[in-house]
Order: sequence, then structure tokens, then C-alpha cells
Amino acid sequence: MATTATTLKGEPLDKAALDAMLRRRMFYTPSYEIYGGVSGLYDYGPPGCALQANIIDLWRKHFVLEEDMLEVDCSVLTPHEVLKTSGHVDKFADWMCKDPKNGEIMRADHFVEDILEARLKGDKEARGQKVEEKEEDPKKKKKKSKGHEAVKLDDAVAKEYEEVLAQIDNYNGEQLGELIKKYDLRNPATGVQPSPPVSFNLMFQTSIGPSSNLPGYLRPETAQGQFLNFAKLLEFNTGQMPFASASIGKSYRNEISPRAGLLRVREFLMAEIEHFVDPEGHKKHHRFHEVEGIELALLDRHTQLSGQTTTKNMTIGQAVRDGMVDNETLGYFLARIHLFLKKIGIDQSKIRFRQHMANEMAHYACDCWDAELLTSAGWVECVGCADRSAYDLSVHAKKTGAALIVRQRLDEPRTIEEWEVDIEKKKFGPFYKKDGKAIEAAILATTQEERGKLAKEMEENGKVVVNVSGVADGKVEVSKDLLAIKWQTRVENTREYTPNVIEPSFGIGRILYSLIEHNYWTRASDGGDEARGVLSFPPAVAPTKVLIVPLSSNKDFTPAVRKLSQKLRSAGISSRVDDSSASIGKRYSRNDELGTPFGVTVDFQTIKDGTITLRERDSTRQVRADEDKIIDAIRSLVNETKTWKDVESELPLFEGQEVEVR
Amino acid sequence: MATTATTLKGEPLDKAALDAMLRRRMFYTPSYEIYGGVSGLYDYGPPGCALQANIIDLWRKHFVLEEDMLEVDCSVLTPHEVLKTSGHVDKFADWMCKDPKNGEIMRADHFVEDILEARLKGDKEARGQKVEEKEEDPKKKKKKSKGHEAVKLDDAVAKEYEEVLAQIDNYNGEQLGELIKKYDLRNPATGVQPSPPVSFNLMFQTSIGPSSNLPGYLRPETAQGQFLNFAKLLEFNTGQMPFASASIGKSYRNEISPRAGLLRVREFLMAEIEHFVDPEGHKKHHRFHEVEGIELALLDRHTQLSGQTTTKNMTIGQAVRDGMVDNETLGYFLARIHLFLKKIGIDQSKIRFRQHMANEMAHYACDCWDAELLTSAGWVECVGCADRSAYDLSVHAKKTGAALIVRQRLDEPRTIEEWEVDIEKKKFGPFYKKDGKAIEAAILATTQEERGKLAKEMEENGKVVVNVSGVADGKVEVSKDLLAIKWQTRVENTREYTPNVIEPSFGIGRILYSLIEHNYWTRASDGGDEARGVLSFPPAVAPTKVLIVPLSSNKDFTPAVRKLSQKLRSAGISSRVDDSSASIGKRYSRNDELGTPFGVTVDFQTIKDGTITLRERDSTRQVRADEDKIIDAIRSLVNETKTWKDVESELPLFEGQEVEVR
Repeated sequence: MATTATTLKGEPLDKAALDAMLRRRMFYTPSYEIYGGVSGLYDYGPPGCALQANIIDLWRKHFVLEEDMLEVDCSVLTPHEVLKTSGHVDKFADWMCKDPKNGEIMRADHFVEDILEARLKGDKEARGQKVEEKEEDPKKKKKKSKGHEAVKLDDAVAKEYEEVLAQIDNYNGEQLGELIKKYDLRNPATGVQPSPPVSFNLMFQTSIGPSSNLPGYLRPETAQGQFLNFAKLLEFNTGQMPFASASIGKSYRNEISPRAGLLRVREFLMAEIEHFVDPEGHKKHHRFHEVEGIELALLDRHTQLSGQTTTKNMTIGQAVRDGMVDNETLGYFLARIHLFLKKIGIDQSKIRFRQHMANEMAHYACDCWDAELLTSAGWVECVGCADRSAYDLSVHAKKTGAALIVRQRLDEPRTIEEWEVDIEKKKFGPFYKKDGKAIEAAILATTQEERGKLAKEMEENGKVVVNVSGVADGKVEVSKDLLAIKWQTRVENTREYTPNVIEPSFGIGRILYSLIEHNYWTRASDGGDEARGVLSFPPAVAPTKVLIVPLSSNKDFTPAVRKLSQKLRSAGISSRVDDSSASIGKRYSRNDELGTPFGVTVDFQTIKDGTITLRERDSTRQVRADEDKIIDAIRSLVNETKTWKDVESELPLFEGQEVEVR
Repeated sequence: MATTATTLKGEPLDKAALDAMLRRRMFYTPSYEIYGGVSGLYDYGPPGCALQANIIDLWRKHFVLEEDMLEVDCSVLTPHEVLKTSGHVDKFADWMCKDPKNGEIMRADHFVEDILEARLKGDKEARGQKVEEKEEDPKKKKKKSKGHEAVKLDDAVAKEYEEVLAQIDNYNGEQLGELIKKYDLRNPATGVQPSPPVSFNLMFQTSIGPSSNLPGYLRPETAQGQFLNFAKLLEFNTGQMPFASASIGKSYRNEISPRAGLLRVREFLMAEIEHFVDPEGHKKHHRFHEVEGIELALLDRHTQLSGQTTTKNMTIGQAVRDGMVDNETLGYFLARIHLFLKKIGIDQSKIRFRQHMANEMAHYACDCWDAELLTSAGWVECVGCADRSAYDLSVHAKKTGAALIVRQRLDEPRTIEEWEVDIEKKKFGPFYKKDGKAIEAAILATTQEERGKLAKEMEENGKVVVNVSGVADGKVEVSKDLLAIKWQTRVENTREYTPNVIEPSFGIGRILYSLIEHNYWTRASDGGDEARGVLSFPPAVAPTKVLIVPLSSNKDFTPAVRKLSQKLRSAGISSRVDDSSASIGKRYSRNDELGTPFGVTVDFQTIKDGTITLRERDSTRQVRADEDKIIDAIRSLVNETKTWKDVESELPLFEGQEVEVR
């Protein structure tokens, strides 16, 4: 398990050099930069956009096609009522505090984390230990000058700080406020304590329609659209359970102070799966055996609460058997997430799965594991895998009356004995008039236990007192001529249940950025210039697969270049021609920075005999053969059915120079 | 050229039956339906989502890959200032009027169109002519009861109405108000005239950041993000012109009263190209010769203004030579749009290109042609192709000072003679103090013609009067010791220019819906039931390519089904298994409705000898061969390298029944 960010070759990562390269090659760029930019908004340039499209394409193959998931594309604009019901209007918030002196607004948890970490660093320095600097942390709002001084702490205090940090995600606003007071945490910029944390809702608001009468939000997740369509999706799936829906689309969160590049943004692409499963039968998964031997690095809730951050390596089979991971379906998806990340080129030693602590979990979740990736900003949550239980389907069904349930035909009929209520409708309505509906609803909502008590009360008094909020003083008398409560036996041939939901949720931008860091390294140049950047993306995700380089801008090369380009296009392989006047070496190194895995040179020999050279990005070695053989080789390399080594063993090596021509 | 909506087989289109089928098969569904829905918002179910993804995939291949366009993905959230500069805050609006009696809000142009069309229908009925009803019109807000009565109009009045309707898109708010008064147009629901039209901005507003201090909008088009990145894109393209950027993403328009299904929505997927071209040299296009023979149905501006809607069929080469289409680049894209629509399966006889009239054009456009598709809602704008000239790049450059220009090295230096202004900065600033900047900017913004006049004025009076808005009374005196205006000669080795933009802009949802109508037909069923729907999508866009049908739910079929499914997945061909208990016939007809072009049956023979049958959707004919041969055939059919006829000639026909088995 790696502990600090490195290049692909294990060397320290020079974040500034990488950032400059990503900017130069237009992987991404701040949105509206010529207007001064807006924090938390980024545009993807051509290589970033292609990289994103390729990650999405692999995601779709790995998850949607592999498991016949039902992909949907739902609206981003969401009316208030839906997100009120889902709990987002009340609970989808971060804790925000304000510096009373300069008005600065900060995320409370990041503020606490920031100051405590600075103090611990000062302590380490005072003790003469080496201090590693994280570059940019997505969970934190950093000052450029962090201003930690080399001040030694008591051993006990330092230990306390470490323990607070290990569970920083577990504090609520009040607790964060207490920490600020207890440790006298002050904003370095002004020297004062910020105000007590208040809740700030993260949803962007708007209103829908010409008369501004329908308040709404930009969705904070794609999930709600999938839940609301559950009944239709089940029908589309011819009623068969379990099944999953999936959605790829943008979501929006009005982050309090986004400052970590692509890692904390206000508009982002998500890919989410909602796997609907019967809660009975321990959420078994019929393909669990395919993944149970896969080893994951797990950091469970108990370890974190004890103030530790040490991961345990174990197979997912073992983790489920031990009960560390609650059930097979959750475990299956953790393993599948791991396989996906590995496939697109994430460094396996930089993946860990961290379980959420109780207070940290979203309001809808009953268990959650994050796939975190190690970057220069520390461990970053890139995929969440939550067990949302029956929460969402239940609240929407309750609010709207829609049947968001599964009706299962039972192999053997079930005999059910229970208390049933029988309302004498003809009398009931006229008797209670306008309150009738509310009283009826309250009676129908009673539990079996409550009904047992009511039955006894009815037998004893000939009437019962029912709690009905909003009617009179909240208590309503119902006499026995209006209501009967009986112990009934009935036989059921079908069973109705609300499915539980396991939700793997991918932040594509964070994965994309981590992938860049994990595949970045530098190569010493021949000429003694500064080292040149390389992005060693696997061919399947690389933005462009092939660079076509004519030796010079000589017009004689044009037909061969055009023909080659056309053939690659027909083979479904993306290529780009670089016929600029830069030297071949410069053009190749530009493409190393773009992560283009293969390069083809068209030269005078090509015009004579139709042969071209093929260069591999990482080794810079070349082979030469006729065009069709080279295209076949490229196809096999891109499909990953052959390695470069295979190609070298089949085609003649080309020792020609990678020279500065022209 | 078709004139009314029909099925693929030329029969009248039963819109209600089609809608029911699309709903049943979950192509799309109103968003938040269990909450009562929100007009103008739709979710795509699995087949709609896959159809959309396939259209986008073909679009990317046809445009982006074919022409090496630079694809970008920009933010949807857009700060106020950007859209203020682009003109959208002031001008991106529709005319809205209100019924004073019931408060109903209506789009003024749709209201006028609606009432006049109803009167014309009433006239036709009174004359005993057949009246065709359009089902749902995206340009109109329809009452369920249209309430047109059979009242005969004067011939002259009827002709006047026809002429108004032919240019309905050309009226501004005031003119629409006059039409309402002149023809006494009343809301059928209340019998009163609506209020005079007022402008309603169509952008959704929100605010960005925790202190709500940055007002913003959801973008109404993807174009602005591309313009703002122009300088970076040009650099990415190693400075070479012309080039195009492209973007696929959602945009938002707060439609006044959306009521035509997918044809007028508030949230929609767009695919936009911004092709940047040198305005000098008549906007020639180096690939125009490839398309000049393509014939299009054109409806130009003059024809419409004369009250006609007759299209002219001519080659795009001819149209450009005649000056009907302004230039080669615009013409090239019109032809490429036509080819794209044809490729995805749009009926060629239901495409026309209509030129915008002067008042109809967006504020940024100097010419615009829409590709309109004929549907049950009439002719619907599905692709716009606008010449935005240098409008956007100029306004953003002016506002921000960013250099959104191209610097071209000239083959031969150019001698330029022109008026130059020379400000004596040392004196100028101190003299005008805080107004200095504004006055300087006003002077620098003068045209050559104005400078000529100012030079004369300066010579005569020793001073000039400059118009500077916002300073004093708008007039400022500048004396000759602060400013010189001279006729200068200079030699330039480079030329700077602001590129012009040709913008093909695709509304994917509208194209998708039209595609469905153009490929829909019904087939009489054997059993004498009602006719069954079929969607004859070309294989490349079909949501799923292959349906795998085991003869029954017998477990013996499972291994063969799984193997086949895996093989198709490896071949990159999307398939779905239907092992539900419905009869084979029912399962096939479900998939005809989903537009699945091929079906494979696994039966007892398969288990014995490994052969499977392959069924073609449109003919329902079948062949039988061993699995690998069938998979090869499917691959060729999906890639469109073979037709079904080819396959029938190569593989043995299977005459087995399409029976109800089980």
C-alpha cells in the first residue's frame, strides 16, 4: 500500500510540473477564464474530453452491458417536492462558518482539519522530523501560506489531535463548534475564531416555468430519477428481480469553497448504479463466486473510530464471511469497482476502501464504503458504494401513493395471522366529516403492536383513542360501531416488498484526475533539456490511439497520410495527424504528454515501398512493416489482445533515429 | 416531397397508437410522473437512452472524427456577465401574453398561429373540404377542444391569414399585438383578448457560491463555452485555420408553455459545432467538391416572405453558385447535415432546409438555415445551421480584452495606409483623470471614416469633440496637444483577423423523436389481433441489435444462451436475453416494438448440433446455421457491410414456425 503520491515510476510527484503540462495540453481549463473564472467550474479540452468519453465507454461495458443494467437518462431540473421528500432539502448540507473579522466563509470540518494538521506539522518540525506536504486537498480549504510554526506539542495533545483527525468526517456542526472552542482554533489570516458552524444546503436553486411558480433545484445526484421510475423499470424488466438501473450524467453541488482543481467542483459527471435487491435472503448475489477471491485493502469503521488509519488486506469473500462487509451484493460491487479501476489504469497500490462512520453517512444510507484513490491531495473519495436500504423507495411511495414495490408470486402460499382494522365507511365519513381522511390514515398506519392494544381497549371501553396529528388536540375517539379490530387469518399467494438498493456511485472527474496522476512520469531527454512528461495511459482509455507524423510538410507525403488516416478511421481507431513544422522529436514528445500510445511515421521510404514505422510511447522503440501489418498490430494493441513485446517479436525492429529533421 | 406525416409504409400515422407503444416500451416518460410531472421535462428509459447514445455515437463519427474536430465539454452553469456580453440576457426571449380573465400565460406567436389556423380550418369545413388534423404542434399551445367552427371566410381574408402564417416567425412582439387586435383574436377558453405581448427571457436563473453573490444561468446553448476557449483551441490546433470545435451536452430553456412531447422541452441534449473560418476568401471549403452534387429541398427567405412555402430541389453546388446559400462552408455543412440525417434513418422525402427571415434570426446570426423534419406536428426544426459571423468572438474580446483572433503570417508583406490615432499618454491621463480610460477607449474605437472627419476637425479647430457615453454630457473636447490623428503608411508581415463562425447545431431529442416516427409502421398479425407496431431502425442506431430467445424457460437452454450472449458481447454487439414466460411470438413482437433488428432462437436443436436461427425484424424471415456463422452474419449486418438479402443467399433458410411454444 502506497502512502504518498508518486509518479508511475515511484518518484516524488512534481505537482506544479504536472499542472503546467495539463494546462499546456488543454486537458482541462478553468471555465470562463477570460472573465476571471468561477471557482469549482472547469471545461475539458480535447484530450480531457476524449479521456472522459473513453472512461465512460469502459464503464458502460464493464457495468451496464456486462450485467444487462437498464440505463436511463433523467432530468437534471428537479422540483422542490421531490427533493423535500428524499430528505435533500433538509439534510443535504455542509457545516459552514464565517470569520467575523474579514467575512471569509469556510467549511467547518476543513477548517478544523486544516489547523490541527498545521499544528501537528509544527510539532513534527520542532521534533526534527521530516514533514511531507500535500499539495492540494479536496477536503480542505488551504491558505497559500499555511503558517504552521515549529511548536512542540505535549505527547498527549498530539495524540488527541491525531485521533480527532482520524474521525474528522464523523462530527456534526455542534461538535465542530466545540472543537473550535476547545482547541482555540483561529483563522490564520485574521487571528480570530470563526463563528459557530451553521448548516448550508448544497443544492443550486432555480424556478421552473414563466410565472416562477415552481421552485426547483439542479439534482445533486442522478439517483432520484432512477428511484421515481422504479415501477416502470421493473415492468420493462418483465417483473424480474434483482435488477439494476444505471445513469450517466451531470450533477451539481454548490460547494462552499471549491479549491482543489477537478477534485472538488460544483458541476460534475457522475455514473451511478441502483441495484434493486430483495431484502430477504441476506442480499446474496448470484455472481459473488466470480469475485470472492479478489483481495482489497479495507479500512473499516471501527479502526477509524479507534483513531487508526491502517488498512487490512483481505479477500472480499473473507470480508463478507467475517461480517466486516455486510452482504454479498455490497461485496460484489466493491470487487467489481476494484476491477474497473484496475482496468482503466489506476495504480492498484493506491486504492483503498474506507467504510463511513455513523455520523458521516448520507441521510439515506445504512452502510457505505468509499473507494479512495491516493493522489497528491491525499486519499480522495472517487467511488461511493452505499446501501440505501429501502429508504428512497419508501419515502416516495409514502408521499405519492405510488406502488414502488415488488409483487412476488410465492411458490407455497403463506398463512398470515394478524390484527386487521375494518372501518365502517358508510358511517365513518359522515361522522368525522372533513377530518375523516386524516383519522382513517392514522388508523391504517398503526403497527401490529398498537392494534393489539387498541383491540384490548375497544373490548374494555367500547371505544378507542387514536393519535391523529393536526386534528383537534391530536386525540380522537372512535367508537366500536365505526371501527372493528380483529385477529384474522388469511392465505397469501403473493408477497409484496420494497426492494433495498445498493448504489455504486462514481465521480468521473475525480477518477479522471487520479488516473492522470497515477500514469504520469518524466523521462530524461537526450538533449539534456529538462525531463519531459509522459502519460502512460492504457491504450483503451488513451484520448487518441495513434499519432500520424509525416517526416516533413513535403506535399508528397499527403496522399499516404490521408490513406492511413482513412484506414485507421475505418478500423475504429482514433488518430491525429501532426503535420506541423516542429521536429519529429518535438511532435512525439508533445504526444507523450497527451498520452498517445502509438506513433506512425510516414517518410520517403513509405512512398517507395509502402512501409511505415510504429513507435511505442513508453519504450520509444519502433518497428517497421507494410501499412496493413502495422494497422493489424495497432488494432491488437488497442484491443489489448497483444502486448508491445508480441509486436516486437513479430515485426522487424526499426533502429532509425528519432531525429530532429527539417 | 412528403406533405403529411405517414408511417414508413406511407400510411396515415396513428399518433395515439404510436404514443401508447412508446410509453409501453419506455422509450421516454414524463419526468417526476408519480409527482404529477413537470411540463417540458422527460426521462429516457432504456430503449430511448440507447437510441440517443447510438445517434450521438454516429454523430461523433460523422462529424468529429471525420473532420478532426476538437471536442470539448464545458460548464453548464454560466455567470451573468458572460451571457450579458453575448446578448442572451437582453435578447434571448420569447413574446408572452396573458389572458386577463383566467391568468393563463401563452406564447404570443403560437396563440396567433393557433387561432388563425382554427379559423382557416373552420373555413375549409364550411366549404366542404377535407381537414387534416395535426396531432401536437411543437410551435403551438393547443387546447384539447380547439373549438373551430365551420365558418366561411371571405376569400381575401383567408388569403391574408395564409400569408400571415407563412411568415409567422418574422413578427416581433408589437406586430403580434397588432395582429391580435386587427383580427380580434380571443382565447377560446375565456372569450377575451390576451394582454399585449411582453418579452420573457428563456434562461433559468440561479446563483453560484455560498453567499449567493454570483448570479448565473443554465446555458441556453453549448456555443459560448467553445467561443471563450477559442484562443486555447487555436493553440491546441498548432495555430492552423480553419478548424472546428464541437460539444455534446445539455442546454436549458425555460419554455413558456411546453406541450409537444419531446419536441419542445426545457432541458435537452444538443450537439453543436463551431467551425472557425477566415472571413476573407468567400468562406470557401476545401471539401466542398465532395458534396456539391447532393440535392437538397430548399425553402428560401424570399419565398416565405411572398407568403409561399414551396421548396426548390437543387444541388447544393447550384444553390451556392446562385447565391441562395451564401457560401461554400455554409453549403458544405447543409449537405453534411443531410447526409447525417440520411445515415441514421431519417426519411429523405421528409427533410427540407428552410432559411430564416430577418426578424426570426437569433440576435447573433447573419444567416441561418434550419433542417426541418416532417412529423405529425408538421415541419419541425431539428438542426439549425447559422452563420454567426464574428459576432461572439468580437463581443467577448471587446468585453474582456482577450485576444480572440488569428495571427496569420503573410506570404507577402502588406502595405497599409490608414488613419492612426496617437494619444499623448503622459498628458492625457493627468488631464482627464478618472474619465481618461473611457475617453481613450472611445477614441480607439473610432472607425477609419470617423477618424478622417476628426483629422479634418483637428486641423481646422485645433481640437475635436469625441462622443463618450457616460462621461459628462456624452461629448468631450480633446485638444491637439493630447491627440494626433495622422495618415500613416506601414508594412505588415502578419495579418490579424477575427474568424467567422459557421454553427451547425443539433437538437438530439427532436431528431430522435422524428426518427421514431419515420421508422414506425404496423404489421397485421396472423391471429387477427390488432396490428402490431414495428420500428424499423437501421441496425446502427437500433437500441439493441439482437434479441436472444430461448424456446422456453427450460434450464437446459441456459448454457447456450449464456455462451451466445458472451460471444456477442465480445464482438461488441449489444444483445438482450428474453427468457420470460411469454410465447416466442409475443417476445418477438415486443422486440419489433423496441426496434431490435435481429432475433436469435435457442431451441432443442441448438443443444444437439449448435445451430441457431436468425430472424430479421422487417421481413420476419429466418435462416439457420451454426452459432459462429450466425454471429459473423450479425456482425456484417450491424456494420452494414451486408444486407439481409446477402445473408439469405449465403445461409439456409429456416421455414420453421414462429409459433406459440411452451
